[in-house]
Amino acid sequence: MNEVTPRSQGSSTRLDSYVDRYAARTQGMTASEIRALFAVASRPEVVSLAGGMPNISGLPLDVVGRAIGDLIAEQGPTAMQYGSGQGVPELREQICEVMKLEGISAHADDVTVTVGSQQAVDLVTRIFCDPGDVVICEAPSYVGALGVFKAYQAEVVHAEMDKDGLVPDALRQAIAATRAAGKRIKFLYTIPNFHNPAGVTLSAARRPEILEICREADILVLEDNPYGLLGFDQEPIPALRASEAEGVIYLGSFSKTFAPGFRVGWALAPHAVREKLVLAQESATLCPPQFSQMAISAYLTNHDWLGQIKHFREMYRERRDAMVDALEAYLPKSCQWNVPEGGFYVWLTLPPGIDAKAMLPRAVTARVAYVPGTAFFADGFGSGSIRLSYCYPTPERIREGVRRLAGVLEQEMELRATFGATTPPSLAARSGYDAPSTDIN
Amino acid sequence: MNEVTPRSQGSSTRLDSYVDRYAARTQGMTASEIRALFAVASRPEVVSLAGGMPNISGLPLDVVGRAIGDLIAEQGPTAMQYGSGQGVPELREQICEVMKLEGISAHADDVTVTVGSQQAVDLVTRIFCDPGDVVICEAPSYVGALGVFKAYQAEVVHAEMDKDGLVPDALRQAIAATRAAGKRIKFLYTIPNFHNPAGVTLSAARRPEILEICREADILVLEDNPYGLLGFDQEPIPALRASEAEGVIYLGSFSKTFAPGFRVGWALAPHAVREKLVLAQESATLCPPQFSQMAISAYLTNHDWLGQIKHFREMYRERRDAMVDALEAYLPKSCQWNVPEGGFYVWLTLPPGIDAKAMLPRAVTARVAYVPGTAFFADGFGSGSIRLSYCYPTPERIREGVRRLAGVLEQEMELRATFGATTPPSLAARSGYDAPSTDIN
Repeated sequence: MNEVTPRSQGSSTRLDSYVDRYAARTQGMTASEIRALFAVASRPEVVSLAGGMPNISGLPLDVVGRAIGDLIAEQGPTAMQYGSGQGVPELREQICEVMKLEGISAHADDVTVTVGSQQAVDLVTRIFCDPGDVVICEAPSYVGALGVFKAYQAEVVHAEMDKDGLVPDALRQAIAATRAAGKRIKFLYTIPNFHNPAGVTLSAARRPEILEICREADILVLEDNPYGLLGFDQEPIPALRASEAEGVIYLGSFSKTFAPGFRVGWALAPHAVREKLVLAQESATLCPPQFSQMAISAYLTNHDWLGQIKHFREMYRERRDAMVDALEAYLPKSCQWNVPEGGFYVWLTLPPGIDAKAMLPRAVTARVAYVPGTAFFADGFGSGSIRLSYCYPTPERIREGVRRLAGVLEQEMELRATFGATTPPSLAARSGYDAPSTDIN
Repeated sequence: MNEVTPRSQGSSTRLDSYVDRYAARTQGMTASEIRALFAVASRPEVVSLAGGMPNISGLPLDVVGRAIGDLIAEQGPTAMQYGSGQGVPELREQICEVMKLEGISAHADDVTVTVGSQQAVDLVTRIFCDPGDVVICEAPSYVGALGVFKAYQAEVVHAEMDKDGLVPDALRQAIAATRAAGKRIKFLYTIPNFHNPAGVTLSAARRPEILEICREADILVLEDNPYGLLGFDQEPIPALRASEAEGVIYLGSFSKTFAPGFRVGWALAPHAVREKLVLAQESATLCPPQFSQMAISAYLTNHDWLGQIKHFREMYRERRDAMVDALEAYLPKSCQWNVPEGGFYVWLTLPPGIDAKAMLPRAVTARVAYVPGTAFFADGFGSGSIRLSYCYPTPERIREGVRRLAGVLEQEMELRATFGATTPPSLAARSGYDAPSTDIN
């Protein structure tokens, strides 16, 4: 405290006088350089294809208002009081009904409510991961989960995906190589449906094989499924948890099927793990927000929430179509992308030699934003890819955004044709800590 | 996953097949044995002097309902959306106004909103504490904070209090002894006002000395202040943070001055620390609940919240009086207790030889509950003390509860006179991990 933080200096040069006191886990925790860009990208004139914010403008505010008004009038003192660390029992029953839609048979006593499913990833990692432990993740994987694993000093080993999701042989190889290196694998973290950021879905045919590999290798599966009910063309594929109760911890969320502002997600876990999760939750927050939980419970009770999800699916399908049509119409033939069957994201592979992170400032100048692929890898890969989200902007804005992106790409390709690669490979491969944030979740 | 958890067995004999996979921090994380008793203690026929739940029955439900109804109608899509990891800017401005009441001059940019101040303790510990680091705490200290320090494998060193709060010489000795043992101190955790569980307040005269000791020793102060505005007889004493900005991280909460069900607390930290707190918050939850924050902001804007706090103070003073009068009337002369000038708690020292934990089952049978003192020590001390809370029951119930407690104590003293100490000292000193929970927060 004898040092004084020089408050008058700009943040880029401000010295951190506490730096010697932080825990080891904190030393690498710095804001990614793309944050500053996203502050610019939030201006209305920029079309953001970067954010993962759901579009909740279609929610019936009158219904929500009435349900919450009744809640305050009839159960206010309970809703505004502390609650159980595990979560509101009635909501946990309703969560079991929601999970039935994906073939899961579960008991409310095995559900722990969390502050969004982000906190569920945090708590599961907290109870399982010592520094140096390995988590196997798809390549690419959710930026917010990679941030958690990093915060607990766990090591991420990536396994490839293809159009049918995680590749079984790639998983086998990742397990074998990790164990050959003498490292301990704690779990497989997977997003089987409408993957963030890759947009692909683990096919029904592959699911038993992935489970069997994990069962044989004796590693847990952390199944993160925020988008499962947002498929455009078919009924949900049964969850991994539907056919394996003891080896799978399943995470769900109301953020995409209702609204994220209440921060209510959950973990369904084998009983012994659930006990630890509740203890961890009590240590982290005492209890998840009682008011949020009872508000969601009232909404589920009083509204045709499945009908609402159907509306969301139609809205997102229209946006997906707008994006895919625009990509087809505007982008150079040397780009590649997938056509997602649900969820929020398209994964776009750029023409060879284009660096997504180096291009981002020029894209923002051209009034379009995206997330560079490197954010979704723990190992510096992904510089030739970007994630595009179609969840939030209108179809017109999506088309305009893709048109602008195509213009930036063409300039970039011309530059490259004239001067060679836009960024030295050594710089392109350097991966900062891309802290998860609501800009890019 | 080849092991199968034998689900049909009772929880006490259920094997945990995941036990070999947990992180080191999780191994000691077991529910305390007093939990089962608190499940019984929540029955209506039991007078619970155990819980720390605020009594919010006096909140104006019509005002809250109108404020939240307007919020949904006018700003619903924003309130239900993801928000900033740091928290809603308008609420952070209002938090600065609240802190002014305790002499704190702060900028909203240095405030991080958290999921209750419990999460603030968690995040501060996360960024500062490596396993083996030392946190200095008062003796006794808040059970929920001790749980966090344990979860991060930090070691707690206690320093004595007296009627004027933390004793400066005890702090000096704790620092010297810890450093002599070659250990690294990360911060002093202190609850200066209406201490939980001790009921005492750090006198204004001692505050500069405590700050000077920490400044000289170059250790941070984590000032946890949920009860500061709930004094009965005088205006708030200026916070430690009021006279030291760089060496103090200040934690506040709306749980006791408004309502805990929204789970909104905050940390005011030096700028560099605040940056790490926001990154840690984003990793933990993406963002604190936007809806909760905007609901509290609307309440603060539309209601005479200071007048409401005045009502709370009067209500709690009446309950404090009821408890102190009943203790005087019913308890054996060999008991000792303090008369708190605010907050929720009385710390009661039992007659010599009585073990508070051993007595608890008999007290619950006699339909009164309390928290044994051992819950508030990291080192097994406290077996001769109990925490009594007067915040929630009515004055009549408080008197009846104390009367029942006096009966149990008399029986216990008779047993002791006949058979000697009620519990072998070795058992009394054994301290399990008393996980924080809403039963005893």
